Amino acid sequence: MGVPEIKAIRTVARTRFFRIEELDLRFANGVERTYERLPGAGSAAVIVVPVTAHGDILLIREYCAGFHECQLTLVKGAGEPGEALEDAACRELKEEIGHGARDVRFIKRVNIAPGHMGFTINVMLAFDLFPESLPGDEPEPPEVVPWPFARLDELLHGPDFREARAIAALTLCRPLIEEYLRTRQPARAN
Amino acid sequence: MGVPEIKAIRTVARTRFFRIEELDLRFANGVERTYERLPGAGSAAVIVVPVTAHGDILLIREYCAGFHECQLTLVKGAGEPGEALEDAACRELKEEIGHGARDVRFIKRVNIAPGHMGFTINVMLAFDLFPESLPGDEPEPPEVVPWPFARLDELLHGPDFREARAIAALTLCRPLIEEYLRTRQPARAN
Repeated sequence: MGVPEIKAIRTVARTRFFRIEELDLRFANGVERTYERLPGAGSAAVIVVPVTAHGDILLIREYCAGFHECQLTLVKGAGEPGEALEDAACRELKEEIGHGARDVRFIKRVNIAPGHMGFTINVMLAFDLFPESLPGDEPEPPEVVPWPFARLDELLHGPDFREARAIAALTLCRPLIEEYLRTRQPARAN
Repeated sequence: MGVPEIKAIRTVARTRFFRIEELDLRFANGVERTYERLPGAGSAAVIVVPVTAHGDILLIREYCAGFHECQLTLVKGAGEPGEALEDAACRELKEEIGHGARDVRFIKRVNIAPGHMGFTINVMLAFDLFPESLPGDEPEPPEVVPWPFARLDELLHGPDFREARAIAALTLCRPLIEEYLRTRQPARAN
């Protein structure tokens, strides 16, 4: 199947953080529909999987306004103009969990609801952490929750970890974390 | 950390499909902030992993207005008022890929961007498929793309499958699909 023809695009609502567009579409079979979407923001976003030398993933528990509750998730944030994804990931780690990382890797760019939203987020994997803090823009610093990688399945399938982006990020990083910890284990045993 | 006090909630924009709220919040440390969010819809949504007796996952390729392109993903849709999640999953399969399912299981409810959105979606796993179609509300039927479960890692890590909800859904269903196919294999070999 192909993409429909866009007959018109209109902004129908705009707030401080969101913009909503209407698209008049004509599909190949002649059907015409008007869709709504939240177009993507200009800045790149990152979601970061930080792994300690001890084999812990550093999760956070933070306030989530969408549900007015605190949830367990991963460090996330928007990149600044001109900032490399690796630098954005490192800065967000410093702001949210008080660690930098010497080894930051881009894993994959994912989206969240492509039928209605143009938002993407870049999954980043961070090894070789070191303590360093930067002041963040959060009203309160999130709680840091170290989670043993060896118990990853319990986290993914359990009831407390529910954000699809975070489940996807850990899934995508999993083989590289396994490889990293496997190659480190002999050194720790000596 | 705890949840902040909500001092006020206002709807600041409303379109046919979306509503945007502003929340005036006061955190425990006295910091006051105004957040925006898209509150959750009333109806439950489902994302469905349909698995054939041959060990294929039935994916779809459909138009995604958020990016104005066709993307590979899973069957999804909103439940109707009073409809059980299992029935919603089965109906969406009939509408989008022309199959029903005799064995539909709820796996986990996930969210997509809980800091800013109250949307949730229920991951459903469907076995024991049979051909049956229902007219759907899509302007064009999506293309059905069977994907061998044995090549799941290639799908998850590859560039064509980018929706975090769908990556999460396959991750969450994976152990049950492995068990299902393992217990079926002897029968097929006979």
